[in-house]
Amino acid sequence: MAASAAEPADDGLVTGSKQRLIQAARDLMTERNTVDFSLQHVAARSGLNAALVKYHFGNKDGFLLAVLRSDIERELKRLELLVALRLSPTEKLTTHIEAMIDVYFRKPYMERLVHHLMHDRGDGPRNEVLAFFVKPLARLERQILQEGIRNGEFKHVDPGFFYHAVGSLCDALIRWHPELWRVWGIAVSDDQRRKYGRFVTGLVLDGVVAKR
Amino acid sequence: MAASAAEPADDGLVTGSKQRLIQAARDLMTERNTVDFSLQHVAARSGLNAALVKYHFGNKDGFLLAVLRSDIERELKRLELLVALRLSPTEKLTTHIEAMIDVYFRKPYMERLVHHLMHDRGDGPRNEVLAFFVKPLARLERQILQEGIRNGEFKHVDPGFFYHAVGSLCDALIRWHPELWRVWGIAVSDDQRRKYGRFVTGLVLDGVVAKR
Repeated sequence: MAASAAEPADDGLVTGSKQRLIQAARDLMTERNTVDFSLQHVAARSGLNAALVKYHFGNKDGFLLAVLRSDIERELKRLELLVALRLSPTEKLTTHIEAMIDVYFRKPYMERLVHHLMHDRGDGPRNEVLAFFVKPLARLERQILQEGIRNGEFKHVDPGFFYHAVGSLCDALIRWHPELWRVWGIAVSDDQRRKYGRFVTGLVLDGVVAKR
Repeated sequence: MAASAAEPADDGLVTGSKQRLIQAARDLMTERNTVDFSLQHVAARSGLNAALVKYHFGNKDGFLLAVLRSDIERELKRLELLVALRLSPTEKLTTHIEAMIDVYFRKPYMERLVHHLMHDRGDGPRNEVLAFFVKPLARLERQILQEGIRNGEFKHVDPGFFYHAVGSLCDALIRWHPELWRVWGIAVSDDQRRKYGRFVTGLVLDGVVAKR
């Protein structure tokens, strides 16, 4: 197309190497089940020079922030659309929970990456994650909750407790995935992801007590 | 008492230094909100020589396993007593959840310690944690669930999903405690612990949907 043909050639290359580095970090964190990796590993994985990480992202914190930002941006846009739809708060909450579980299954490092950047790396990274991840996500979730409380579908629940509890529930199964098979005979498949999604939405909406 | 007077004097000393090392590790992990510490830190904190860690526990994995084992043993005994009591499954589950939240608030490093030993340290530590922590805890929880399913109090729920989901819920608030104040204005106090306990038991038993 005319627009992309008009872009300078090295711009495409820059975007390409940025994306390849980000994808290499995702692959490493997913395979090793840890957020602890060196820039040398990323270089080897991506087939690019580790110096490019510094060139594009400044340092490892900047790099990790870029990975997380690119992970969450699309999800926040989808959630924003969902909140604006003409659906019941119960339908919105169910869809949101299923989407979060889906994200954690595709990106099992995400919750630990958030934790690492919020707790181990000082005020700069923490404030960035608060600004581009935690606060917007919490705000949109709170809108769904409040809508449901207003129209009588939901009980009154503390939105702060809810945010942490439900985020943690959505991540719980995948966070332990290397052990699930040993203990429970559960393989992390699409089928299990769907089953777990139904379990969590059932739990959050209605709990375990049988209704008589 | 006669029994303890009959123990050799150095036995008391050994137990003393073991306990002091374990307590120093707990303090460090709680204050720093990480399971990553060196044996030098533990030595400095306990006022004992780092060589005593090797003497008592072999290596750092052995040391971490000893900390976790001493953390969980008392809780498993209490849970075993609870399961045997003449209470309804709902009362047992409520009490169990509140006890778990209480443990995580007192020992906020625990879930991460379990994760570290299960995922990052190879088969030996993983199998030990499975044997002395995960399997007994999961078995007792499953007993409560099955009792409730049998007598009609609970719906049928997957015990593996339940174990991970509820463990994760109990740990969710404290795992983020350094951030709670910034985002939510929630201070981690006894009062908040109790409120969170009521929130989680309410969620697990009945969910957020208002009953009409």
